[in-house]
This record gives sequence, structure tokens and C-alpha cells, in this order.
Amino acid sequence: MKLIKNAASRFVPDVVNGEKQIPFKGVGKFKPENKFASHKIHSCADYPSDGNKVETNLKTALKKAGLKDGMTISTHHHLRNGDIVTNYLFDVIHSMGIKNIRWFPSASFPCHEHLIKYLEDGTIHHIEGSMNGPLGKFTSEGKMKGVGILRSHGGRYQSVQDGEVHIDIAVIAAPTSDPFGNANGVQGKSACGGLGFALADSEYADNVIVVTDNLVPFPCVPWQIQGNNVDYVVKVESLGDPSKIVSGTTEITKSPDRLLIAEYIAKFLNEAGIVKEGFSFQAGAGGTSLAFIPFLKEIMKRKGVKASFVRGGSSKYLVEMLEEGLINYILDGQTFDLDGVRSMLDNPKHVMTSPFTSYNYHGKGNFASIVDAAILGATEVDLHFNANVVSHSDGYLLHGIGGWQNCLFSKCTILAVPSFRDRIPVIVDEVTTLCGPGELIDVIVTERGIAINPRRKDLLKAVEKSSLPIRSLKEIQNEVYEICGGAPAKPNVDKNKVVAVVKWVDGTVLDSVHKIM
Amino acid sequence: MKLIKNAASRFVPDVVNGEKQIPFKGVGKFKPENKFASHKIHSCADYPSDGNKVETNLKTALKKAGLKDGMTISTHHHLRNGDIVTNYLFDVIHSMGIKNIRWFPSASFPCHEHLIKYLEDGTIHHIEGSMNGPLGKFTSEGKMKGVGILRSHGGRYQSVQDGEVHIDIAVIAAPTSDPFGNANGVQGKSACGGLGFALADSEYADNVIVVTDNLVPFPCVPWQIQGNNVDYVVKVESLGDPSKIVSGTTEITKSPDRLLIAEYIAKFLNEAGIVKEGFSFQAGAGGTSLAFIPFLKEIMKRKGVKASFVRGGSSKYLVEMLEEGLINYILDGQTFDLDGVRSMLDNPKHVMTSPFTSYNYHGKGNFASIVDAAILGATEVDLHFNANVVSHSDGYLLHGIGGWQNCLFSKCTILAVPSFRDRIPVIVDEVTTLCGPGELIDVIVTERGIAINPRRKDLLKAVEKSSLPIRSLKEIQNEVYEICGGAPAKPNVDKNKVVAVVKWVDGTVLDSVHKIM
Repeated sequence: MKLIKNAASRFVPDVVNGEKQIPFKGVGKFKPENKFASHKIHSCADYPSDGNKVETNLKTALKKAGLKDGMTISTHHHLRNGDIVTNYLFDVIHSMGIKNIRWFPSASFPCHEHLIKYLEDGTIHHIEGSMNGPLGKFTSEGKMKGVGILRSHGGRYQSVQDGEVHIDIAVIAAPTSDPFGNANGVQGKSACGGLGFALADSEYADNVIVVTDNLVPFPCVPWQIQGNNVDYVVKVESLGDPSKIVSGTTEITKSPDRLLIAEYIAKFLNEAGIVKEGFSFQAGAGGTSLAFIPFLKEIMKRKGVKASFVRGGSSKYLVEMLEEGLINYILDGQTFDLDGVRSMLDNPKHVMTSPFTSYNYHGKGNFASIVDAAILGATEVDLHFNANVVSHSDGYLLHGIGGWQNCLFSKCTILAVPSFRDRIPVIVDEVTTLCGPGELIDVIVTERGIAINPRRKDLLKAVEKSSLPIRSLKEIQNEVYEICGGAPAKPNVDKNKVVAVVKWVDGTVLDSVHKIM
Repeated sequence: MKLIKNAASRFVPDVVNGEKQIPFKGVGKFKPENKFASHKIHSCADYPSDGNKVETNLKTALKKAGLKDGMTISTHHHLRNGDIVTNYLFDVIHSMGIKNIRWFPSASFPCHEHLIKYLEDGTIHHIEGSMNGPLGKFTSEGKMKGVGILRSHGGRYQSVQDGEVHIDIAVIAAPTSDPFGNANGVQGKSACGGLGFALADSEYADNVIVVTDNLVPFPCVPWQIQGNNVDYVVKVESLGDPSKIVSGTTEITKSPDRLLIAEYIAKFLNEAGIVKEGFSFQAGAGGTSLAFIPFLKEIMKRKGVKASFVRGGSSKYLVEMLEEGLINYILDGQTFDLDGVRSMLDNPKHVMTSPFTSYNYHGKGNFASIVDAAILGATEVDLHFNANVVSHSDGYLLHGIGGWQNCLFSKCTILAVPSFRDRIPVIVDEVTTLCGPGELIDVIVTERGIAINPRRKDLLKAVEKSSLPIRSLKEIQNEVYEICGGAPAKPNVDKNKVVAVVKWVDGTVLDSVHKIM
């Protein structure tokens, strides 16, 4: 393994886990020349003609799927921190004496701390997917056998579609399924909303196992996952803890600083001329993105304008706007609370999307770039508007990328960040880990002011007469450095020891995450 | 080209249009060893970031798609006999001086007689798809430059998925589309219902052009065709004649013989124990399949049983049953009348299906084999229960296969046929063209009696005490031969001149269609 300087001046390995890598070449610069992943042609003659694919248990299904050492096993994260299927899956894999699995989740949660023992004993070789919380710490300390690979939701779809990651066995936890494997997440006691993050897995894996705690007669409608892609169906008692799968209801932050940021964002969108009839926006369920919605709603009502669509994780706030007729459609990638689940089930204008429709950069366009404004967070930003979303200034890997990189392609990308956290400044000279190139980040909103990327002369002009606190990043940084006593300490890492890499949306390597010393 | 005897004892060419063929090996016997078709990886960098893919006209779109001689162009048939897009498409192709196109429609209709001049002048080399009416006659007379290839709806999906047919440009007529190419058939003045027959085209073609007469703002919901698969969108004045795209309403035959057959079928299903709580059936909009529905409905109401689902083309009769709660779901492949379109638009229990979900034999199972009973037609049947659906006893190719071959995999396949047509007996010693092997055909119902395939001892036993006229095929044949003056004349064809082949659901060649002398 050699470290190569890529187009973002970051040093990245040429080989990761034995596979040759392409270093980042610049936004929109890498043109794939290969063809899509291809896979074995199946025959109905090999599947039960009555459509009944139910297996007695997960172990039997894994055996039939030919589980062996070194395989790639994928899971999705729609059960969030309530997921018990993934932990159970690896308990079974471990009990079968299988080793060196590449675990390919669409994201991981603190509940997956259970898997650390399997990372330690060699059941799991490495994780490709978000390494949040405890798994991130484990990785940062250099304890994982292989190198972690972080991808955006769109990058995950791209990697599977392009054949960069070949999934041997996909295990899809499904809140409702029929014996044929048609499945959805909107019905059943473990309802979680959409199942879009499992789409690539269902389409491209050699073997697809649906695990459900609500087996219904054929046909399971809607079928968010198509049974025609499924090999086996396994019934279990429970997929997890419903209260951790979705919130009863999502609550908005009470932090005055975050509320101020949220208000600034809504006002900025209005004064920059973005809030107008038929506009669109992306909003997640993170603190500030959620908090900005009521402010925006107020402006929209006052102006009498409607949004054509909203992309993002859905919550009761978006559902209310949909039901009040303030937005025409919710294009939902992930459902955060029970109001969201109910709305997706009942309202044809609340549409499930997938990383294919919304985020895949190796498609014929995607939804993310059509969105007028995206409101996102970051752990760090630097003076060139580059941003970090996976690690903290101390170097620890603690978050996944989610759809963050993909959303940067919106027409106006806004990062909502507090100017410091725990007395550590957020606007730094150089981000610890580069996740998003500054050229794609248009506005940074802090409680101390709003910085507009100098490349966006149009936005600067649009708000030149605004009463909003438009300032330079440097100015805000200086102010914060004074309060916090200067720049944050450099992380104490071994620059020669790469524990994980961050992929760009096109599969190239954008940056490295280093071992904490 | 050499003629080889296949597993059904039919002589089929080893090479068709320059491509090597696999002769039919028996039902479920051919195991594909290849991988799926792969295709070029795209990049969002090459598509408009605002999602606007609208081109000024079809010619520009075809040019950008790189149209050239010898390419494969696909179309779908959801506009049925009201389609003017396909004719217009070939007018444009002809005006560009392009030659030797392989036209790959999901079906053709009498309105496509317009294309005969392009078959004559070399614009179109040959048709792979149904050659109905005038196009069938043209083919039968040996006038087409290449050899026609007939596939079932499922076989068409299989051929594209497997890479047997590579589509260069798919032209998808869409009653509603947004500028990104998300499209559906349930909205707009040319509404036709589902667009499932265009699914494979949208997924696998190198270039996808959506042609619409109802361009709506993003997002077009529902998106039956996903814009992420689309390259260009073209707006035209009109897709065709709405009154020929869907019927105002579908009417049941008044022929006493056909009504008797329909009644026999409903009674048979009941007496054989198939009509019970949660059963399922497939019914199209063809004369007798439609006529049997009211008889079945009567029985269901009397017995107080509900069907779990119905597969097939939808019409007001099925919609009524859905709305009355007699069936739980309509799994709809094709929408035949305005009641069907309205129901698909409004009723979440009226679900669009595609050849992928319902018919593709090279999938991990499909819906067709889950269905308890399928009611189909035929042009001829023979004493071994083999059946023909594409040609008549005079040898002329006059119909497409549709989903017929795929539906033969139902748990009880019933062919509804009059015992003679225009004084020509329908039960023959050997079918002119073999489309469905007798081992998959369970029951043949005529107005003179019901013949059960001797392989289905279970069915024979189930109705042994029935008052229904259960007879042997031979007995019915004898009776009809007496009325009609013996067996029909052998078709006057040149057995060495193959004008078209009939593919089986797995891509192997089941039979040949010969030139009329």
C-alpha cells in the first residue's frame, strides 16, 4: 500500500483491502469506463413454483445461500438503533464458525456495539459502511483487521451497481413480507417506513434473505422489495425494539443557538429568493435541519407559496406541511417517526425513494441535484468551505456519511453548524477528514453569522442588502478562536496508518482516516 | 441455417438472423449459464444537473442517442390500436435515411400496418415481437427481410435481461412524464393504465427516449418508469387516439357458445375445488376469459368466498369485484378500459405489475406460477394438449404470444376454445405451430365438453362425480370432424423456409413458422 496525493491534495492509499483504488480526480472528473456489475441468470425451475420461499430459520437460509469464509454480507439500517436482526445474524454466522466476513451495512448504530467481539475474533474482517460511535472508536484505535470504507448512500448504490462491491448474501430485515419475498416497511409491528436502502442489495446480491416478524399471505402490497429478487424468507419473533426503530414523535431542539441558526437559514432562503412558488428543499431529522422547518413554514404561509417537493427523512413536521397543502410531495428516503410511517402508508403523495432515484451518481441524473436547497450539518468546515462529517477534530471517526455527500449537489447547499462545540472551534484551517469539497458548499450558517462561498456571486448579490449577518468565514473563525483560545489541537494520529478511507460519490478515494496514537 | 429437431420434435433453425440459437430442451430443462446483460456505467456529470432532459423533437433525441443503421429500437404496446407514436417514430427514422432497424415492440396492432412500407424499403429489417394481422400476413408471405422472432411477454423481459436482445434505443410513449423522465400511464389525456411492458426497455436500453403529450413538473408521481433510466424527454401533441388506447368500457361476448364455455369454466373451477377462500386466478380481456368472470362472481358470492388476488388485464368487471370486496388485489399487467385506469390511479389495491414480476422465467420465481387457475385462449389444440396461439390452421401468422406461454405455469391452466371456427375444427391431430407444450395445459373447455389432461389425475378425481360434460379430446374431435367434414386441410407451406420462430419462455426455440406457398 502506497499513499498517493489526490486532486484534493489528500493522501490516500492506492490499494485498500487488497483492491486497487482510484484516487479522487475532482468533482465530475472521473468517467467510469467499465460496465455494470453482471450476475448469474436464475431460472424459475430452481425456485418453488407455489412461490413459498420460507425457510425454518436464518441458519438454514444462510447454509442454502452457501455462506462461507470471506464472503460479503449486507444489511440495511432502516431499523436504526432498534435493530436486533444484524446482531442476531452475526451470532448465527459466528456459531457456524465462519470467518473474515466483509460486513456491508447501509449504516451502523450504537446497538451494533454487540459486533465488536466479532470484529475482535475475526468473524468480521472489516466494515464497509458507517462506523458510528463505538464501532468508529474501535476502528480509529486501529483494532479492525481490514480497512474501513465509508461511502455515502448514493456511493453505496454506485459501488454495488458498478460491481465495485459484490454482495454474496443480503439479509434484509422487513417489517412485512409474504412467502415469495415481496416486502415492505410500512406495515407490521416493526414498521420503519421505506426500505430504499436495501434496494441495491435486493437487486444485485447473489442471495437475498428476507427476515420478517410479520409474514402475510401473497401478495404483500406495497412491495418495496420485490420478491422476484428474493431467495429465502425467514420468520422471526421480532426485528427489534419498535420504540428505537422509529420515534413516537420527533422533537425539535430547544438549544437557543441552534434555533437561531435555524431561523437564519429560513430567512436566508427567503432573502436569497429561493423560497418561491414551486421551490424544493432537502431536510433531514438532524437537530438544526428539523428546527428550520417551522421557520420556513411560517415564511411560506406568509408569502402564500407552496413547495413542489421536499426530499429527505420525513417527520411529523413535513407530514403536517404535506397535509396542510404547503408541499406537493414528500420524496422520502428514510422515515423518522410514526407520523412519517403512517403518511407513507396512506398518502400517495408521500413517496418512498431509494439511493438509486435520489443519490446514485452513476445514473442518468438523480434527484439530489434538482433540489433548490439542502440543509446539512458538519463536524468541521475549513476556510475553503471544505467540510468534514465523519470525524471530530480529535481525529476519532464517529459518524457515517449518510446522504450528505450526495446532497451537496443541490442548487444551494447550506451547512448549519454551531461555531464551536465543547469549546472546540468548528471553523478550522484544514478539516481533519475531507468529506465534501468546498466548491460544492455554498453557505455556512452559524449562530454568529452566515458565510457565503465567494464562488456564489449570485447568492452574495441576492442578499447584499439583507439585514442578515453576512460575514466571511475568517471573521467568524477569528471571533471563535478568541473565545476558545485559538485553533483546536491537531489530532494525534499516525499519518502512515490508514484505518479507513472516505470514498467520493463516484467511487474514487477522497480521503484517509488515520489511526489515533 | 440448418433445421434441427428439438425436444418437442419440431424442426427449428440453428441460426436466426445470424445469431446462434438453442433449440427447446423441454420444460424447465434449459439452465442458463451466462450472466445478465451488462451495460455502460453512466455519470450524472453527463446529464443536466437541473434534471431537465427535454429535447425539442424526436429527431434531435434520436440523433443525440446516436441512431444508426442496424440498431435495435424498442417500443411498447400500452397504447394498443390507438398508438401513433410508433408510426411517427419510423417516419422520422425513415426521413433520416436509416436502414435495417430491428424493431422490438412488446406487441404490434393493426394500426402498425403503416410500417409495411418500411419493411418493404429496408428501413426495418425484421420484427421481434408479435406480428399481428397485416404484419403477420406480410411475414407469412415471406416478404420480411429478416426472420421474425415471437416471444411471450416474459420471454421478452428474459431476452433483454439475459443480453439476448440488446436495445440500442428504447422509445417509450408515456401518457404523463416530467422533464426528468419519470413517467406513468395513469394520468393525462392518453392514459392507458400501467407501463409495465416498457420496464425492461427502460432498465436495459443504452438510450431511453420518453415521448409524452402531458409534460408535468417534477416529480411525476407515480413513476412507473423511473427518470433515472431516461436520457431524453420529447413532448408531442398527441400519443394517439384515446378511444382506441383504452375502451370506454369492455363488453362481454353475446355469443351463446362462448357464454356456455365461460359458464363451464366457472363451474369446473368450483367443482374441482379451486374456488375457495383466498384462491387466485388470471383472466384477460379476451372474449371468453372476460365472460367467465360474472359466472365466477356469482359462485363466489353464493359460497361467500373471496379471492386473494387476480392477475391479468383489468376491466370494469374485475374493478367491480375489487370494489365489492370479492378480491383483495388486482395485480395488473395491462389495463383495458377506463374503469381499469381509474382504479389503478386511485386504489392502492390495484397494483401495476410488469413482465419482471409476473412472467420472467429467468428470475427467482414469478407470479404466474403462484396463480391457482389461468383462463386462456388458443387458435388450435391437439390431442396431446399441445396448443397454438400464433397461427391458424391455414398456416398464417396472425397473433402474438402475449403473456400466454407464461400463464401456462399456473396451478391449473384452462384453455377456452370453441370446438370449431368458420367450420374449421380447433382440436387437431397436430398443431400448426407449437406455442405451449401439452404437459402444461391441464384442461380444455369447449362448448361440447371439458377435456382434462390425463396427467392431472387429481383434477380427474376431483370432478369424477360432477354433472359437467367431462369428455376426452378425441371424443370431442370426432364429433366436430363429423360436423365439419373431417380434419382441416394441412397448411400449404414451404417447410424449408422459416419466416419466424417461436421462442419458449427460457429463450430456446420451440417452433418455426413457415412461408405460405
